[in-house]
Amino acid sequence: MGTTLPTTKEKLRKVSTATIATCLFKRGLKNQFIQDVKPLKPNKPNMVGEAYTLRYIPAREDLNPIEVFRDPNHLQRVAVEECPKGAVLVIDSRKDARAASAGSILATRLMVRGVAGIVTDGGFRDSAEIAELEFPSYHNRPSAPTNLTLHQAIAINEPIGCGDVAVFPGDILVGDDDGVMVIPAHIADEVADECVQMTLYEDYVIQQVENGHAVIGLYPLVDENIKKAFESWKKNKTTNR
Amino acid sequence: MGTTLPTTKEKLRKVSTATIATCLFKRGLKNQFIQDVKPLKPNKPNMVGEAYTLRYIPAREDLNPIEVFRDPNHLQRVAVEECPKGAVLVIDSRKDARAASAGSILATRLMVRGVAGIVTDGGFRDSAEIAELEFPSYHNRPSAPTNLTLHQAIAINEPIGCGDVAVFPGDILVGDDDGVMVIPAHIADEVADECVQMTLYEDYVIQQVENGHAVIGLYPLVDENIKKAFESWKKNKTTNR
Amino acid sequence: MGTTLPTTKEKLRKVSTATIATCLFKRGLKNQFIQDVKPLKPNKPNMVGEAYTLRYIPAREDLNPIEVFRDPNHLQRVAVEECPKGAVLVIDSRKDARAASAGSILATRLMVRGVAGIVTDGGFRDSAEIAELEFPSYHNRPSAPTNLTLHQAIAINEPIGCGDVAVFPGDILVGDDDGVMVIPAHIADEVADECVQMTLYEDYVIQQVENGHAVIGLYPLVDENIKKAFESWKKNKTTNR
Amino acid sequence: MGTTLPTTKEKLRKVSTATIATCLFKRGLKNQFIQDVKPLKPNKPNMVGEAYTLRYIPAREDLNPIEVFRDPNHLQRVAVEECPKGAVLVIDSRKDARAASAGSILATRLMVRGVAGIVTDGGFRDSAEIAELEFPSYHNRPSAPTNLTLHQAIAINEPIGCGDVAVFPGDILVGDDDGVMVIPAHIADEVADECVQMTLYEDYVIQQVENGHAVIGLYPLVDENIKKAFESWKKNKTTNR
Amino acid sequence: MGTTLPTTKEKLRKVSTATIATCLFKRGLKNQFIQDVKPLKPNKPNMVGEAYTLRYIPAREDLNPIEVFRDPNHLQRVAVEECPKGAVLVIDSRKDARAASAGSILATRLMVRGVAGIVTDGGFRDSAEIAELEFPSYHNRPSAPTNLTLHQAIAINEPIGCGDVAVFPGDILVGDDDGVMVIPAHIADEVADECVQMTLYEDYVIQQVENGHAVIGLYPLVDENIKKAFESWKKNKTTNR
Amino acid sequence: MGTTLPTTKEKLRKVSTATIATCLFKRGLKNQFIQDVKPLKPNKPNMVGEAYTLRYIPAREDLNPIEVFRDPNHLQRVAVEECPKGAVLVIDSRKDARAASAGSILATRLMVRGVAGIVTDGGFRDSAEIAELEFPSYHNRPSAPTNLTLHQAIAINEPIGCGDVAVFPGDILVGDDDGVMVIPAHIADEVADECVQMTLYEDYVIQQVENGHAVIGLYPLVDENIKKAFESWKKNKTTNR
Repeated sequence: MGTTLPTTKEKLRKVSTATIATCLFKRGLKNQFIQDVKPLKPNKPNMVGEAYTLRYIPAREDLNPIEVFRDPNHLQRVAVEECPKGAVLVIDSRKDARAASAGSILATRLMVRGVAGIVTDGGFRDSAEIAELEFPSYHNRPSAPTNLTLHQAIAINEPIGCGDVAVFPGDILVGDDDGVMVIPAHIADEVADECVQMTLYEDYVIQQVENGHAVIGLYPLVDENIKKAFESWKKNKTTNR
Repeated sequence: MGTTLPTTKEKLRKVSTATIATCLFKRGLKNQFIQDVKPLKPNKPNMVGEAYTLRYIPAREDLNPIEVFRDPNHLQRVAVEECPKGAVLVIDSRKDARAASAGSILATRLMVRGVAGIVTDGGFRDSAEIAELEFPSYHNRPSAPTNLTLHQAIAINEPIGCGDVAVFPGDILVGDDDGVMVIPAHIADEVADECVQMTLYEDYVIQQVENGHAVIGLYPLVDENIKKAFESWKKNKTTNR
Repeated sequence: MGTTLPTTKEKLRKVSTATIATCLFKRGLKNQFIQDVKPLKPNKPNMVGEAYTLRYIPAREDLNPIEVFRDPNHLQRVAVEECPKGAVLVIDSRKDARAASAGSILATRLMVRGVAGIVTDGGFRDSAEIAELEFPSYHNRPSAPTNLTLHQAIAINEPIGCGDVAVFPGDILVGDDDGVMVIPAHIADEVADECVQMTLYEDYVIQQVENGHAVIGLYPLVDENIKKAFESWKKNKTTNR
Repeated sequence: MGTTLPTTKEKLRKVSTATIATCLFKRGLKNQFIQDVKPLKPNKPNMVGEAYTLRYIPAREDLNPIEVFRDPNHLQRVAVEECPKGAVLVIDSRKDARAASAGSILATRLMVRGVAGIVTDGGFRDSAEIAELEFPSYHNRPSAPTNLTLHQAIAINEPIGCGDVAVFPGDILVGDDDGVMVIPAHIADEVADECVQMTLYEDYVIQQVENGHAVIGLYPLVDENIKKAFESWKKNKTTNR
Repeated sequence: MGTTLPTTKEKLRKVSTATIATCLFKRGLKNQFIQDVKPLKPNKPNMVGEAYTLRYIPAREDLNPIEVFRDPNHLQRVAVEECPKGAVLVIDSRKDARAASAGSILATRLMVRGVAGIVTDGGFRDSAEIAELEFPSYHNRPSAPTNLTLHQAIAINEPIGCGDVAVFPGDILVGDDDGVMVIPAHIADEVADECVQMTLYEDYVIQQVENGHAVIGLYPLVDENIKKAFESWKKNKTTNR
Repeated sequence: MGTTLPTTKEKLRKVSTATIATCLFKRGLKNQFIQDVKPLKPNKPNMVGEAYTLRYIPAREDLNPIEVFRDPNHLQRVAVEECPKGAVLVIDSRKDARAASAGSILATRLMVRGVAGIVTDGGFRDSAEIAELEFPSYHNRPSAPTNLTLHQAIAINEPIGCGDVAVFPGDILVGDDDGVMVIPAHIADEVADECVQMTLYEDYVIQQVENGHAVIGLYPLVDENIKKAFESWKKNKTTNR
């Protein structure tokens, strides 16, 4: 899974989904934000990892009695055991949160296995417990009913839709309190680099704005004098580290 | 594709989706009606055929310029050429009708190739022309924008969701003016048989009700005298054919 | 059921739901249009009748096997047999059209019994057949699944909500191609009278507009000269009958 | 209003919204289809005209008693009298069809005045009468309640949103049975020209497909032999006119 | 109200809605989770109590001036005074949160009277104050407008729908941070017992998973060795208490 | 901007949106609550200020490249610099939260400039940072994509719709944890006065209810004895200040 540089993930831990969204917008990618999902608990560190996908279809009653979970090859369980360390498990729940996409046992297992996070455009059960894990998790809303009620896991690591976004296995997902961005794998390195630079300038801008500077000319950077001031601020900042 | 008896399709051409729904309900299958799709033109003969599926995910801009349709292996076009004669092309458009699932050229090609019909939980463009074809078609609503605007064909003949129903390749689809029912392949023969019998009784009931008979005791059949009267009506009817 | 004058219904057969809506708006009643229902077949005569209500709640599986319809006291069937002649059966389906509110057998029975029409904020099955009856019917969209799938008839002739409107037993319902208006019983007579007058003027206005007259001053009637012209037109019209 | 060539409208009367959508997609304009509106009556000639806009905001009760329509300067009425001949009145109803955007009197007046059509992302009252006019009209669904119930006309000929599309005064609107496309004014001429050419080829394609030709290579045009055959067909067609 | 054992409520205070959902799923009850409601404040003890219901219909303006609250028999107020101690007041607000189902004064009164909690599929006003009460409360979202704006209390302790679930008076409601489950009264005792056992095993599973055990074979319990280990863990746990 | 008394804002800081909603309901204003927006962070002091509006329409791609923000006259940026001190910036985002209405830089600038708060019926990006500002902010949900993705700022300080409410420039907005109420400018003073009185009584009621008093007769105030007790409580309270 992937040609992404090891440093890329590190960089993406320090930039916001908003910055990434702007960076992708400049490249003509306007639909990479997974719509209508939120973190189960805010204020956690960024979630960063390659997409490992799980696709659900609507559950047909005869194929989804409770006993199916006894099958060691049930795809939901297989996904939880096989999702690579450092990856993010992304579930296509067809935006249907009326039954759970997964619960705290699976989330805990993923965390213990070193998976980087979990995202569904449906909902999780045991949401209070998942929220407390040191494990980033994103869904639409809590949902107690067992997965089998409405969902059948049908395929692993195929391209899917999640929250109206195309997710290809290996794409880099970044999550913060705004939600989750999907970065196409082949541009992840350059996006990470550009976002680090953008973030530096945004930090400068926020500081200037807090000090009373107007936004026009400053953000985006148009004024030549500001450009110089920023360069000097940046140099100073680096030196002082 | 399939073990369904040749006569089964013939039977299903003469029964309604409502009758099939009741028949499946008795078997514990309560979610086989593709929600919120309608025929582009009512009053056509029933659509009957095995499901041949096409799955869309959200279109990513860099992968979906207009040029992709020049690729002879573009999956939407491949599906149109490979969907078997007598089958129904069912498209998982994630219930998104903001761009077209297909248009009149592809629908015409499917018709000419002997395909039995087309269903999407999205929308068709050139809807007025498709409506006039001798070819059953079902969608949510007309949609002019080209497919590439929001959809990317990603897989052929996988299990999919369509209108909140699980559709497995080979399932038997039946469509009338109410909409489209999905019959699991392994029970299609028995469902067809049972529906033919149910339809016979429903015809009798409607006739009785038109003549002023009350519904209670008649529908469903509880009263022993009615049972006898129906048997005699049925015998008579068969004799007179 | 009611104190409505016999002539009131006759008058309401000749006025539009739009005119009634304006008339009720003037009385401070702004929410009497049943939202998002339409006639199964347009261009039928107005539906006019007193509300006779049927309330559904979500179906619980253990209470709703197919056998419940064998019970002669099943409320859906009782409603069909007891809805008074000349009344309209109004069903609170909680705006859920994923399963049928009723089908053609019950609709036919209602028609034969002299009921004036049927309205649900859900959907009907056998919709093509119901459409062809000489019987006004209104729903959100066709729905093949049997009633028991999602609905349980729980009460007859209680006040209900239907399409976001309060419907009290005995209220007068009027339906045309725009949809269905609910007139509180105690004002039905005066509303009918006023609407007949309003309709007369609207007929005059349309004729004037077709002849090239501007709308301002004409509709609503502000200009004194138009007032005179209308009075003369009205006198003439009555004389010529 | 506008620099659009006189012949442009004529050309747009003969092309479909689907063709226009593809043409705009090629120019990077992917969101020009007014979502979720339909013709009140299908099979009318194309609606073509410059956008003349009317913007509604939610009605505040104290500002919207029935008497406001007596004001000759009420903006809804002014719009109806001032919308230019040949233009299309486009109403931003905030996708709210719970009350009418307009009714048959205003629609008739617009028709008599030579206006080219009317579009709302809400609903019309007197929909059966409007449908019968020789006047193209598009809405979401019929709605009997008077305009004042939920809408207040607040501005004329401003840029608006309609059905999730930006509409600038002077943009060219084209409507057929699929719905309504919005063509930015400055490219209307070239879009019309290109669409005429595209339509010619689509006609050829449909004819070929009806004759049994496969879609791949034909649509879009990739195969060189087909290119030649089309050129010859086109020459022939023009000669025979 | 009911035949539920006194110990049943105590047991249900210690199990999760997710566990109850699975337990009911095994009995064929798949639709007992009140959809799209959440606690006003998380991390409170479980809400447990018999359902006492209040049904709203849409408010008709003439019947709902502010003065109606002066009526000592206004049903909303009666419900608040008569809801039994230990019960949960469940309100059918037709999933309409545009006006309040109730506010902090009524919630406080319910709490003081010993009622066990309040649930609406609409919204509460004074939500910040209700959140701080030692009183479990569930709604869709906060809503400041007075109840009379859109709701009219019409009946007490009838079967209702709430969040797409059937709620019969006397059903046992259990709420935690995931939301609210409805347990049919006649199976509440056995469900409580089974859930206690399920919870015990789930606790064991979580502990094993935290220690690095894989999920397959463990959850659900398939492996014989794990079964023995669990039995021993359970014995040990009980002994050590 | 306005004739509102300086003391009016001070009063409105101490009353709840629920109380204001009831007060406006009495005046026939039933639709002044901005639907489906919430504070980015609860428990802040009330937001109070005159409405200063910004209207968005859907973004057309050719008009909204990233470069437009370099234009010093871009209306979003102009609004941020010109929104008066003490006013609230209210954005009509057409209830579309799929792209951001604004982000933390603009919110910070508004705060520094002394603006009283910001409201959108869409979503904000950098939501975690905005939440931490000493600056009230209301939206539907977080949204990372840049504003230009779906929104184009088109007009400043026009009447708009926001969350299905009419907002006229100068109207007084009050926000608390329930959401945001819009008070028409010309009645703000009297509404503030009345709400202060209502709040006083509500405080008394809550205290009585906490002490075990029943709601009927107390709220609303009907009982003469309670009236006297309240008057005495009020006198006492004022004296003790």
